[in-house]
Amino acid sequence: MSTTTQPVAPHAPATGATTMKAIAVIPGRANTMHLREVPRPTVDDVTGGRGVLVKVLRVGVDGTDKEINAAEYGMAPPGFDYLITGHESFGRVVATGPNVTDLAVGDYVVATVRRPGSSIYDQIGTYDMTTDDMYYERGINLLHGFLSEYYVDDPEYIVRIPPGLKDVAVLLEPTTVVEKGIAQAYEIQRRLRVWRPRKAAVMGAGTIGLLAALALRLRGLEVTVFGRTAAPYLNSDLIHDLGARYESTVTTPIGEGCRRYGPFDLIFEATGASPVVFESMRALAKNGVLVLSSVTGGDKMIQVPADRINLEFVLGNKVMVGTVNANREYFEAGVKDLAQAEAQYAGWLGRLLTHPVKGLENWQLLLDTLTSAKGAIKVYCEVAED
Amino acid sequence: MSTTTQPVAPHAPATGATTMKAIAVIPGRANTMHLREVPRPTVDDVTGGRGVLVKVLRVGVDGTDKEINAAEYGMAPPGFDYLITGHESFGRVVATGPNVTDLAVGDYVVATVRRPGSSIYDQIGTYDMTTDDMYYERGINLLHGFLSEYYVDDPEYIVRIPPGLKDVAVLLEPTTVVEKGIAQAYEIQRRLRVWRPRKAAVMGAGTIGLLAALALRLRGLEVTVFGRTAAPYLNSDLIHDLGARYESTVTTPIGEGCRRYGPFDLIFEATGASPVVFESMRALAKNGVLVLSSVTGGDKMIQVPADRINLEFVLGNKVMVGTVNANREYFEAGVKDLAQAEAQYAGWLGRLLTHPVKGLENWQLLLDTLTSAKGAIKVYCEVAED
Repeated sequence: MSTTTQPVAPHAPATGATTMKAIAVIPGRANTMHLREVPRPTVDDVTGGRGVLVKVLRVGVDGTDKEINAAEYGMAPPGFDYLITGHESFGRVVATGPNVTDLAVGDYVVATVRRPGSSIYDQIGTYDMTTDDMYYERGINLLHGFLSEYYVDDPEYIVRIPPGLKDVAVLLEPTTVVEKGIAQAYEIQRRLRVWRPRKAAVMGAGTIGLLAALALRLRGLEVTVFGRTAAPYLNSDLIHDLGARYESTVTTPIGEGCRRYGPFDLIFEATGASPVVFESMRALAKNGVLVLSSVTGGDKMIQVPADRINLEFVLGNKVMVGTVNANREYFEAGVKDLAQAEAQYAGWLGRLLTHPVKGLENWQLLLDTLTSAKGAIKVYCEVAED
Repeated sequence: MSTTTQPVAPHAPATGATTMKAIAVIPGRANTMHLREVPRPTVDDVTGGRGVLVKVLRVGVDGTDKEINAAEYGMAPPGFDYLITGHESFGRVVATGPNVTDLAVGDYVVATVRRPGSSIYDQIGTYDMTTDDMYYERGINLLHGFLSEYYVDDPEYIVRIPPGLKDVAVLLEPTTVVEKGIAQAYEIQRRLRVWRPRKAAVMGAGTIGLLAALALRLRGLEVTVFGRTAAPYLNSDLIHDLGARYESTVTTPIGEGCRRYGPFDLIFEATGASPVVFESMRALAKNGVLVLSSVTGGDKMIQVPADRINLEFVLGNKVMVGTVNANREYFEAGVKDLAQAEAQYAGWLGRLLTHPVKGLENWQLLLDTLTSAKGAIKVYCEVAED
């Protein structure tokens, strides 16, 4: 991990420069990730004097980027045959349009990913709940992402980061997955009028699982994380350092862990393995809520105890909810959780930043690290020094 | 169906009578339903002068009664070796203790079924959400039911019925299953801030399915009911008369029905067949909610497309919720829906009362009708004339 702690004045783009470097793919064709020169954005690209030009400092990568490079999904913006990838951003404002009052040059910022479509959910700012068939996501679908030297956007989609979080803010976007999932669970549980969850389980000890364990510990829950790898390893150490419990499913299957430490009032599923979803249904406490956040793109069929699953859901008044993406408010909630994490578990978040890769031109190393680095938690590109 | 429309003065129990007839089972032994003489309750059986003595007029029976007679569950009250069955009651107040102000002699009433345990949910009146291991339900577990000439209870558990609903109020208890399920769905959907469901599906065209279709039509939704039987038959006629659609899964599998009429913002599952639960998951619209209300006591295992089910839940922000039993507020909501039903679809509810059986002494006919009557919607005992 390489970070600077001394304040550095942000610089405006060099006068006259009209292009910049970016990492892109050719949507529809597998393994086409490449570095290219693309037009450099300007504040005037956003109408109404509301442009915010951001110099990109860091961009995290994850399974979505892998799948886009494998051409499993991802479309180019209209008029382009390439898609700039990267949706986990962190940067600094270098210029603002005349009508931007909510952000200033020098601010550290993270951009949200999805942009509103036309449904009523989009119109009220909850574009993560869109009912449109088509969706717009920077770096994923129909909009360029952040793996470039600069980007421009409306302040509506840019969240300010306290300077004290600049070393860890590249984790904000993955944190919002957790924030939305937990917030939806609590919203749903208002049906109970009073809900004081005590025991939580997190399925999966990857980046999302770790951040879910963190968020649930910050809310005071007793947390058990189930992962496949035998402890001890970095992730299980991180979990213990939160005062949470780690159990490897190799030695403790979920059912056994549930008998020992559950049943669980809240379960956050983040393994990417759909059979775990159905095992998790059975580990829920009465009135409990199961949050599903894994994207499982395959065609796996499994055998399930249908009568038992249904009976337990009915007799126990249980809930299951799927959750995707996040809107601005979850980014704002994530900022608060990152700040509380630094206050409560100083240095913990920084330990997730295991694999920095310096420079956009090292896109191949970035991709290789994402694909095959052992023990990686967060792989990210250090696009520029602060 | 036999009802009286002229007002009849309620009579107090004959002076000196200390026993009454009741239908009971010996819990733990299958096929032990019988008629017996049991102590007649008095208003003094409830402490604090809060007793309400009710003369039973009608009691509906359902699958739960069948299963209790099959000794699948059901326990006798402490100190008894028998359990008086029956939980779908309708009656008239014949005496009240000195501190009862909320009900009066002559009132038509229906009693709730579950009684509070000790959890926080019991303490705030939402005993349907109890987290206790043990539960108390009149006519089902640890408390005597209503298939008797009289019962006594606290007014907290007795809901007043408008005289204009006396001919259909025996349907209130099954209606509360629907009321709770739909209310929980709407409570959960407050997570969306705005939710205007348009399309609903009901799985199953039995008593609960019909009442669910009714409740959803009263809320203005476009309703498709899926049943097994080929139309036309009484139930499909009833569904059409609500302005709803009936589809037999023999000719229109759920997936096909979903493509044609869905996807569905709300699905109410009431078939008793757990594979339908998993098919229903896939028929949900984005942001949709699936309500499970079937008790499936078997051990059926089925093959499911685990990856697809999970992926669709996640990308569509979908919810599934189980629901059991009901507390007082759902009985009160049910009264309103029954009244609206009579106002909107006059006579419709009465058509559900297909199989009356006169007199507690005809318990064998009641049981036989419940078990094998063709085309039965609601089987009920006419315990006494009004």
